[in-house]
Amino acid sequence: MPVAPPVPGSARPRSWWGWGYADAHPGDAECAALGALLPGTLARPLPVPRVADLTVTRPRATPPPALAHLVTADPEARAAHAMGKAYRDVIRALRGRPGRIPDLIARPADDRQVADLLDWAGEQDVAVIPFGGGSSVVGGVEYRGDAHRAVLSLDLTSMNRVLEVDTAGRSARIQAGALGPVLEAQLRPHGLTLRHFPQSFEFSTLGGWLATRAGGHYATGRTRIDDFVQSLRVVTPAGTGASWRLPASGAGPSPDRLFLGSEGALGVITEAWMRLQERPRYRASTSVAFTDLHRALDAVRAIAQSDLAPANCRLLDPGEALLSGASHDGSAVLVLGFESATARVDDRLASALDLARAHGGRGGAAAARGDAPADAAVGAWRSAFLRMPYLRDGLARMGAVVETFETAATWDRIPALIDAVRTEVGAAALKATGHPATVNCRLTHVYPDGAAPYFTVAVAGRPGEEVEVWDDVKAVATDVLHRHHATITHHHAVGRDHRPGYDRQRPEPFALALRAAKDALDPHRILNPGALLD
Amino acid sequence: MPVAPPVPGSARPRSWWGWGYADAHPGDAECAALGALLPGTLARPLPVPRVADLTVTRPRATPPPALAHLVTADPEARAAHAMGKAYRDVIRALRGRPGRIPDLIARPADDRQVADLLDWAGEQDVAVIPFGGGSSVVGGVEYRGDAHRAVLSLDLTSMNRVLEVDTAGRSARIQAGALGPVLEAQLRPHGLTLRHFPQSFEFSTLGGWLATRAGGHYATGRTRIDDFVQSLRVVTPAGTGASWRLPASGAGPSPDRLFLGSEGALGVITEAWMRLQERPRYRASTSVAFTDLHRALDAVRAIAQSDLAPANCRLLDPGEALLSGASHDGSAVLVLGFESATARVDDRLASALDLARAHGGRGGAAAARGDAPADAAVGAWRSAFLRMPYLRDGLARMGAVVETFETAATWDRIPALIDAVRTEVGAAALKATGHPATVNCRLTHVYPDGAAPYFTVAVAGRPGEEVEVWDDVKAVATDVLHRHHATITHHHAVGRDHRPGYDRQRPEPFALALRAAKDALDPHRILNPGALLD
Repeated sequence: MPVAPPVPGSARPRSWWGWGYADAHPGDAECAALGALLPGTLARPLPVPRVADLTVTRPRATPPPALAHLVTADPEARAAHAMGKAYRDVIRALRGRPGRIPDLIARPADDRQVADLLDWAGEQDVAVIPFGGGSSVVGGVEYRGDAHRAVLSLDLTSMNRVLEVDTAGRSARIQAGALGPVLEAQLRPHGLTLRHFPQSFEFSTLGGWLATRAGGHYATGRTRIDDFVQSLRVVTPAGTGASWRLPASGAGPSPDRLFLGSEGALGVITEAWMRLQERPRYRASTSVAFTDLHRALDAVRAIAQSDLAPANCRLLDPGEALLSGASHDGSAVLVLGFESATARVDDRLASALDLARAHGGRGGAAAARGDAPADAAVGAWRSAFLRMPYLRDGLARMGAVVETFETAATWDRIPALIDAVRTEVGAAALKATGHPATVNCRLTHVYPDGAAPYFTVAVAGRPGEEVEVWDDVKAVATDVLHRHHATITHHHAVGRDHRPGYDRQRPEPFALALRAAKDALDPHRILNPGALLD
Repeated sequence: MPVAPPVPGSARPRSWWGWGYADAHPGDAECAALGALLPGTLARPLPVPRVADLTVTRPRATPPPALAHLVTADPEARAAHAMGKAYRDVIRALRGRPGRIPDLIARPADDRQVADLLDWAGEQDVAVIPFGGGSSVVGGVEYRGDAHRAVLSLDLTSMNRVLEVDTAGRSARIQAGALGPVLEAQLRPHGLTLRHFPQSFEFSTLGGWLATRAGGHYATGRTRIDDFVQSLRVVTPAGTGASWRLPASGAGPSPDRLFLGSEGALGVITEAWMRLQERPRYRASTSVAFTDLHRALDAVRAIAQSDLAPANCRLLDPGEALLSGASHDGSAVLVLGFESATARVDDRLASALDLARAHGGRGGAAAARGDAPADAAVGAWRSAFLRMPYLRDGLARMGAVVETFETAATWDRIPALIDAVRTEVGAAALKATGHPATVNCRLTHVYPDGAAPYFTVAVAGRPGEEVEVWDDVKAVATDVLHRHHATITHHHAVGRDHRPGYDRQRPEPFALALRAAKDALDPHRILNPGALLD
């Protein structure tokens, strides 16, 4: 099928080393002000790193003439594709120790070109790292080691079009390289939305969401992108195929579910038919304060086990609530939001508030209206949420160690898990740095049978050894999660950073099957080596 | 873990050759009355077949002494494990041409015994057919061909206990061999239910539901067993493993989703942690009549795309409505039901009725109460539903060809698909038999992006060649589904009968991965040979 030229994205320049837009990063003065909040950080911010200061070697592979027009060795592009956007990545760039810089960047425009690039890479022993928005926070888009002759970053963002829309069936065929705003802009004229809004929405692609099983807009029910997939198209070194567009099928194990979460290790997802929704017309949201976090957890469980299905049901622990301005008195805060395209949701909000109050919740003046969240705590929290990665990078420039990790566990394990992470990760950070650490928690997604806690750690680092500090702290976090049977990741994926936890957690029969599938689909072992599997 | 003795099931004798309980089958007079409804059937019913008339050969393998107490070669048991309960199976038994009778039946009590049996079978080239309730309607539990030295049917119904219940997290660890009523009886004292009610509920097991991705209680939303799985335990020839109990995880492709739908070809599911629900306290249901089936489809689509989430949303076409007594005037009938453990559902029913009436629906006096369905059409339909397989067997005794098949497709394809199945399958049945055929349709499950039509075919057979007639008709049905991009099965599984459709539908990269997984987990190729894969 001939594919039209890519849809123009934002022309606003992106940061090659840090989160998002280059011009949205805090300046030196703001960095210093942020650093002042964390005892022991540097006196002056580390300078913004420059590509010119990197050692960018000559590419160790040359594409054949037929593919040359898709490929660049431009140093700026190569630097921007060397790593994702974890704290670990940002501080490595700031300290002049980036991950291995890929030799080449390819920007294919269609499946045929993806397949041709894979063929060439297989013949030439070139590792291929599928790359969407590059917002991985788990080492998912970098190359480690030295087992391949060269490294190609396969940037899919030129494949960014909505190719077909089925209005009656509310679904669309979308190319995998479309960033969130790019695909939503193409769906809007049809009155439809994918409504998948991860924190990285502006800087991540449909293909990245699918390959990493990203967590989306909804706190309950259909919490992740998986449930919105109608069919997938995948290009592998062993061939290309697409599942049928089906609302459901019981014909064998789901073919799509093997590629959802495959993180570029089994194939390259090039397009998907996605289930869409009407834009919501009715909204109601509010926040409720709790003195006792454990009672707040009971309230959230009661709401998750009701039929109420809030779109937003985020519980912020006291530290998280304080940091985001949602409370100032040491309370935990539950942010509740309901929405619907077809019916008013005030009753559902009122019922949820009843449940919250029955477990000691206070406040919760309900408000329902259009696009803006209702009360001040909700608004404060949302702004802080979108700004957070930029602030993290500002703190990184002050030599701080600031990172998040997330998990999920059954309800019986949640209270002890949260306590253990706070205690043990806090102690590990203190031990590694000599500085007191902040460890905060919120629940991002909740289920009838459990919840997904999301932790933020902040501590002044050991100057020049911030990566080592974080790796030590993360090893303790991984161990705590494992002991509490909490998954190594609820929605950030495995990449390379989560391999120690993933390898211990993955059932052995599935590991055998996955390795066998990898051997069959990627016989030259060129696809994202080290992600999910060795 | 020591496992307590199995929970006693029903002592009521089961039919070895037909559906369900032996004493529930229609007698000769009722069979004759049924046959009179279908022109061209036999004058007298075929006799009920007797095991004594079968040729049951000596077993071609002998279990080792350590496993001998788990194994029987009793002819009655072997006959009852020779086939599932498709029309094809019933008529083969009636005509004295059953599928290959397994050499041995094993009834393990725990994982260790399952693993030991698999080890022995691998060494001895014995095919192993995992067997739950034996209600497969797709040739899922029989052996075809002659590639193995002997055949063992692995009956899991001695592993039928609920081992743990987590009341706060509303989940339970349940052994795979528990039949529906057996597991529900153990959950009831905890006030919880799995609420998975396929038509085969009394005669199928949790493990069977999981291995075939069975369709359950809900017409919308969580329509199949997959969504209620918290973790799986699987014994394979290459080792045993369990996924963690997690409410959700984004760590790689879902390990459980590879085994859900694996139909015993990759391993034996021995237990699962399942998500449970409170028993519903509020119900409301009704039925609505439509003169125009296409307008009824639009009504159903509107309801499926709303937030209303009916538990029941079955659209019966005029023939199906007539047959079940739900209408007598040529109308299509939509049966709607809502339920909740926490809140009244009258408003949701009223909103759904508004949508139905906006598309030409008539009637729909709403009724809300306890366990009984509300109006006469609902009740009539439910009784007919549970009685249907027995009537099918009665018609089979009259030499009729009576079978169902089901599918799913996106909304854009549904009207033409239903028309084509009616026309082409009806014509094929007429051509094969010289008799006019009835082809009816209902929608069993509906989705925002499509629906699952379920077809029933009834025609007088060619005496003695009923299997050949059905195979011809089914081949046409498979072809129609394929041309309309409708799945070969929504919830009946693939087994052996659906292989022609499945093989064409399965994306090639997934086929490669599945074959590789099979080779890795089942290196001697003893597990359910011919199901899903050659």
